[in-house]
Amino acid sequence: MALPPEFHDIARRVNNWGRWGEADEIGTLNLITDEVVRGAAADIRSGRRVPLALPLQQDGVQTGVIPGRVNPLHTMVAVNLEIFGPDTVATSDDAVTMGLQAGTHWDGLTHVSHSGRIYNGRPAASVTAHGRAAFSGIEKARHIVSRGVLLDVARARGFDRLPEGHAVTPEDLEAAEELAKTTVRPGDIALVRTGQIQRYLAGEKEAYAFPSSGLSLRAPEWFHARDVAAVANDTLTFEIFPPEIENLWMPVHALDLVEMGMQQGQNWNLEELSEACAEEGRYTFLLSAMPEPFVGGAGSPVAPVAVL
Amino acid sequence: MALPPEFHDIARRVNNWGRWGEADEIGTLNLITDEVVRGAAADIRSGRRVPLALPLQQDGVQTGVIPGRVNPLHTMVAVNLEIFGPDTVATSDDAVTMGLQAGTHWDGLTHVSHSGRIYNGRPAASVTAHGRAAFSGIEKARHIVSRGVLLDVARARGFDRLPEGHAVTPEDLEAAEELAKTTVRPGDIALVRTGQIQRYLAGEKEAYAFPSSGLSLRAPEWFHARDVAAVANDTLTFEIFPPEIENLWMPVHALDLVEMGMQQGQNWNLEELSEACAEEGRYTFLLSAMPEPFVGGAGSPVAPVAVL
Amino acid sequence: MALPPEFHDIARRVNNWGRWGEADEIGTLNLITDEVVRGAAADIRSGRRVPLALPLQQDGVQTGVIPGRVNPLHTMVAVNLEIFGPDTVATSDDAVTMGLQAGTHWDGLTHVSHSGRIYNGRPAASVTAHGRAAFSGIEKARHIVSRGVLLDVARARGFDRLPEGHAVTPEDLEAAEELAKTTVRPGDIALVRTGQIQRYLAGEKEAYAFPSSGLSLRAPEWFHARDVAAVANDTLTFEIFPPEIENLWMPVHALDLVEMGMQQGQNWNLEELSEACAEEGRYTFLLSAMPEPFVGGAGSPVAPVAVL
Amino acid sequence: MALPPEFHDIARRVNNWGRWGEADEIGTLNLITDEVVRGAAADIRSGRRVPLALPLQQDGVQTGVIPGRVNPLHTMVAVNLEIFGPDTVATSDDAVTMGLQAGTHWDGLTHVSHSGRIYNGRPAASVTAHGRAAFSGIEKARHIVSRGVLLDVARARGFDRLPEGHAVTPEDLEAAEELAKTTVRPGDIALVRTGQIQRYLAGEKEAYAFPSSGLSLRAPEWFHARDVAAVANDTLTFEIFPPEIENLWMPVHALDLVEMGMQQGQNWNLEELSEACAEEGRYTFLLSAMPEPFVGGAGSPVAPVAVL
Repeated sequence: MALPPEFHDIARRVNNWGRWGEADEIGTLNLITDEVVRGAAADIRSGRRVPLALPLQQDGVQTGVIPGRVNPLHTMVAVNLEIFGPDTVATSDDAVTMGLQAGTHWDGLTHVSHSGRIYNGRPAASVTAHGRAAFSGIEKARHIVSRGVLLDVARARGFDRLPEGHAVTPEDLEAAEELAKTTVRPGDIALVRTGQIQRYLAGEKEAYAFPSSGLSLRAPEWFHARDVAAVANDTLTFEIFPPEIENLWMPVHALDLVEMGMQQGQNWNLEELSEACAEEGRYTFLLSAMPEPFVGGAGSPVAPVAVL
Repeated sequence: MALPPEFHDIARRVNNWGRWGEADEIGTLNLITDEVVRGAAADIRSGRRVPLALPLQQDGVQTGVIPGRVNPLHTMVAVNLEIFGPDTVATSDDAVTMGLQAGTHWDGLTHVSHSGRIYNGRPAASVTAHGRAAFSGIEKARHIVSRGVLLDVARARGFDRLPEGHAVTPEDLEAAEELAKTTVRPGDIALVRTGQIQRYLAGEKEAYAFPSSGLSLRAPEWFHARDVAAVANDTLTFEIFPPEIENLWMPVHALDLVEMGMQQGQNWNLEELSEACAEEGRYTFLLSAMPEPFVGGAGSPVAPVAVL
Repeated sequence: MALPPEFHDIARRVNNWGRWGEADEIGTLNLITDEVVRGAAADIRSGRRVPLALPLQQDGVQTGVIPGRVNPLHTMVAVNLEIFGPDTVATSDDAVTMGLQAGTHWDGLTHVSHSGRIYNGRPAASVTAHGRAAFSGIEKARHIVSRGVLLDVARARGFDRLPEGHAVTPEDLEAAEELAKTTVRPGDIALVRTGQIQRYLAGEKEAYAFPSSGLSLRAPEWFHARDVAAVANDTLTFEIFPPEIENLWMPVHALDLVEMGMQQGQNWNLEELSEACAEEGRYTFLLSAMPEPFVGGAGSPVAPVAVL
Repeated sequence: MALPPEFHDIARRVNNWGRWGEADEIGTLNLITDEVVRGAAADIRSGRRVPLALPLQQDGVQTGVIPGRVNPLHTMVAVNLEIFGPDTVATSDDAVTMGLQAGTHWDGLTHVSHSGRIYNGRPAASVTAHGRAAFSGIEKARHIVSRGVLLDVARARGFDRLPEGHAVTPEDLEAAEELAKTTVRPGDIALVRTGQIQRYLAGEKEAYAFPSSGLSLRAPEWFHARDVAAVANDTLTFEIFPPEIENLWMPVHALDLVEMGMQQGQNWNLEELSEACAEEGRYTFLLSAMPEPFVGGAGSPVAPVAVL
């Protein structure tokens, strides 16, 4: 079941291999220049901060369908332990086991491969169990701070939550730009709101996961044209699930991560941000979304914050 | 071995219990107001970003001395796995087991207790193995973004790295303020550089851990007077180890976390930031240092970034 | 909601506290004497071996209902890794994260407490997050090898699988003894077959877990009278779920583990053994069921084997 | 650095590929017949049981030298938790993260490969991060119960502990047979005692690991001639470390696991067994050594027990 010609056509148009040199490992993050960051700083007006991560807990978004992507198992290794003797200062320590893509996270560039390749044309086989990602590990994404733009598609289209079958198209994104009274610029991080995460917040974990609204196969070209640095949204699947073309699963992942070298964020909670932006009447802000620097990681939990 | 009168004297002077109400769970983070954040935004001038986290890997800073505080065990749960059949898009996923205080991290307010109490006078027994922290869990620290100030004590005192026995005193902190040509303000996050982390970076893990320079027992009062929101440094122990008063272990932890309700950061790599600040001739910046929101967590890994 | 008088009445009758001395930590395992083991050896006739553990895998019996009791997450930390250079001998290593009570397991004596006590009258508070079980940790059960007896209640009562609501009573156990043409003796390990595990084996995980047939509140007295060393069965809940007396949850656990000091086994797959015993026309054998010696463990996975 | 001719010569002589059919996945475990087990039962005379596993704890044998082979991190996920309300029966549950080869363990047949092959000529590439071992996973070793023979080489050679540089040769093994007044038979499991584990028991973890006495490159042929089912010993490295031929690392692993299809046990504590056998004047017994059935596992912790 090879990937169809439609996919390869788009792939050719959005491909960034070699654009930042053969040695490049971070793709579109190169678009975040110092100038972009200064522009982001100018977007801090009220000083209001909105966190975008879901709480990390056993009762997380994973339902067990994706093998190995386990919700956080958080345990105490010490509880009020008086290491230095009775009546001294006591410590409580904890540990966790979790899938790096289990909660609110970034997909690193090595999270998917297709046709035997990862970003910048490197062999997929450079990802191994012991070496993990030899190239483009998530620790290479050293500082993800840029201008963020909330593309509130649900609000722009008059929905509280997009219907499950709604594939977010370039037209939707432009409607959201219009609502935001801004144009997405090179180096921006685009946050696309569908409202799908309301399902999880209401306790409907299965319904949150599948079927799900999400980005259309047509979206990557739009992001490529706008030259965004990264895209995140409020779904588990990122792109529409099931897909628009039968049996073509995860084409947006392949286009974003492999062809463009563009990180993706999933399970971002954009509900509070949507309210804040609507209240303040503006949809741009400084966004800090630092991955934890797992060496060779194919992704990372992230606790993003929008500073309005 | 009860805590000595010297400790209790200082404790009384820096105590913040009730200051933000009986229900408060975040302590000095309350000092980060919208206005403080707007001030931090004004400190973004060049747009340069400096990450402060150590890489997360098996060969981390832990030596096995602290039971249960394990370095990250990062494993792949899928490597180029073609979930949807041959020649389709393939995924690589990973998982981790790690101590939340193992690498670059925040100590949450429940990380230590003394005399049966945690911050705001709550019983230490409110921290349990299953409920974890019922109050002041790290997920309550929703958004840690503020003005950061690098107090480069090593540089101010003419050292590349402070000698192991050097307890960082209020006088040292003021020398660093002078170097920085700034005064620490309410709501600031103070980053205190000792240079001790050079030991770890040079592969000397045991020497990094102990003995270690670090904050003096006298430092918390200074931070209390300045009303900082949080303090982090580049050591494993945070405070001087072994301590200044025999058998009085971890007094700074107890003063900061329990009495003041002030989060502490450890194992922050301030070397690149020190160079950057020296080059730019300024030591203030916007600091984003979001903990991962582990529900009931006594701490969290953090990937801080300074935006200059 | 204190435990009702019916419970305390039985508790008094089956209590073994002090029976093997105040210092005892292993309870009824004391009943396995060298003589009992010699008797078990005499029950090896054909040399046929039947394993009783379920495979350890992500798709295990846990459904997520019991917080923290996670199915095994088994990952590779090395795959054909040539540690000593190219074309040398290569190694593959793996690691696991799992709940100790997640699969086929023994409940250790500290797995439950009631009225503030564990076995032998020790305080429940002797179980802590860092010290784990100070007494009666699973590592104290040094060698569990004895005569095993299959009490095939389902077969004796003419069922392939007992109905969910069937509480296994002393009368059922005696019917199974009759089928087995044996009498349970002091030091024996009794394996009680309900057939409930067929539900899991058929992929019906939820139905396997609840509601479930299992031991009646009346069973512990029978085991106490017979002086068995341990009891295991083929259910997740061990005892009938929901319980026979409203709101009296887990009384059998409390009677077995706390009062008698008798280990319990759960999720043991007795299907193949049932066939083997029926074929050979005998229901006794040498049983080896060694727990993994987790220091302070409240339980352990076990891979039991019956040697017929 | 290809494997030298000496290695390939021995490999040819001990090779068992195809011996039990092309589909075979368990190698020399096939030698444990019902008859062998009946013979083992006859070796139970006193009924004394001797456990052979080291306690599982953070302070285990691993020193951090082997990446990812982590000592057990054992944590509580519940401590006296009253799930069903106040004053009800309370439960304590635990979880673990550990390397499967970290403590007393079996190496499964896929633990090593050489020249691109695993046992029975299958491709090494059949071991993957997600599928783990497609063939010969440790769960295929369904029931390891057989006659055990203690080959107490240290005692036979007049040592409390063999010198570090002592490679255990066929002559040593025969001296141990003589001491044991037995001949190793087809299907036996041979336990080879060097005394090296005394180092770990004395707290000298580094010295335990390296350098270490262990099996000579010449030992596999002897085991092959005797047709043993499996071999275990009381070292971390199993074979002599550093090796007898320069740069030929782990040849015994490769011969045993790949060529013969014979499982190996490491870190088995044979000290108490050595005393027991000397006291009883006999060195054979029934040995039960069931691996935990990790699906696709390259090894497993094991809690072996000798029944004398």
